[in-house]
Amino acid sequence: MNVKPLAAAAALLIVAQAASAQVKPQEAAAYRKSAYHVLIWNWMPLANMVRGKNPYNKAQFELYSNRVANIAPMLLEAFPKGSNVAKSESKPEIWTNWADFTLKMKNFESESAKLALLSKTADFEQLKGQFGKVGGTCKACHDLYKRE
Amino acid sequence: MNVKPLAAAAALLIVAQAASAQVKPQEAAAYRKSAYHVLIWNWMPLANMVRGKNPYNKAQFELYSNRVANIAPMLLEAFPKGSNVAKSESKPEIWTNWADFTLKMKNFESESAKLALLSKTADFEQLKGQFGKVGGTCKACHDLYKRE
Repeated sequence: MNVKPLAAAAALLIVAQAASAQVKPQEAAAYRKSAYHVLIWNWMPLANMVRGKNPYNKAQFELYSNRVANIAPMLLEAFPKGSNVAKSESKPEIWTNWADFTLKMKNFESESAKLALLSKTADFEQLKGQFGKVGGTCKACHDLYKRE
Repeated sequence: MNVKPLAAAAALLIVAQAASAQVKPQEAAAYRKSAYHVLIWNWMPLANMVRGKNPYNKAQFELYSNRVANIAPMLLEAFPKGSNVAKSESKPEIWTNWADFTLKMKNFESESAKLALLSKTADFEQLKGQFGKVGGTCKACHDLYKRE
């Protein structure tokens, strides 16, 4: 997993925004649906362990937390300007509060990167704590920017 | 990006298969559609550079080749046994030739990992060569296992 310094992340973000500038709104909306689908698929094995549905398995926790950490920095690119389409769970406030939305996404990226790093060495109690922090960054965004 | 030894990859594969064993066929088919969507979205910026549609940009090439390399090892899990559903681009031969399908997927994983590593240091001509090798591993699988 790549944990990049913030300066590099910012540079890549500009690149990513440039790349996504040519994309049609409906295509971007479809892409973010797929990207979140992939995210949730890989989040659920972690949630199932944390909630006691499945027993803790270190290899599984490492695998899926690294995937989540790798997917997280891909999400912001899935919200290009102008991709506020009707059939979408994304609220228009994403684009009117873009700086706040970006900040919340960066919080998700950094907390999920920490979870992936911890997964190699930390005990399960510590992982549950950090999982909760990641979940908090999800909720912070969903509360404001996701249609239920 | 994680480039793991084969033994570790095999261990993770078993874990991933165990995790996906509980998944319903339609859910797995929907997931692999999303996973390939994410893959292609991140593949296209590379293809556009290689084909001369966009100019070569090192930061972009690194970003997207690392994403492709991170997504590649997620795909096999999206083909659990029993997920051969009617509305799918996946041919039933995937599951009857599972060992060959797995081998072809592993080739894709290793060649895309090489592309991501090369993206940091190699010149564009080398990257184009390696991009072609990755594309070859895609085609090898699609020729046999993908409905057009």
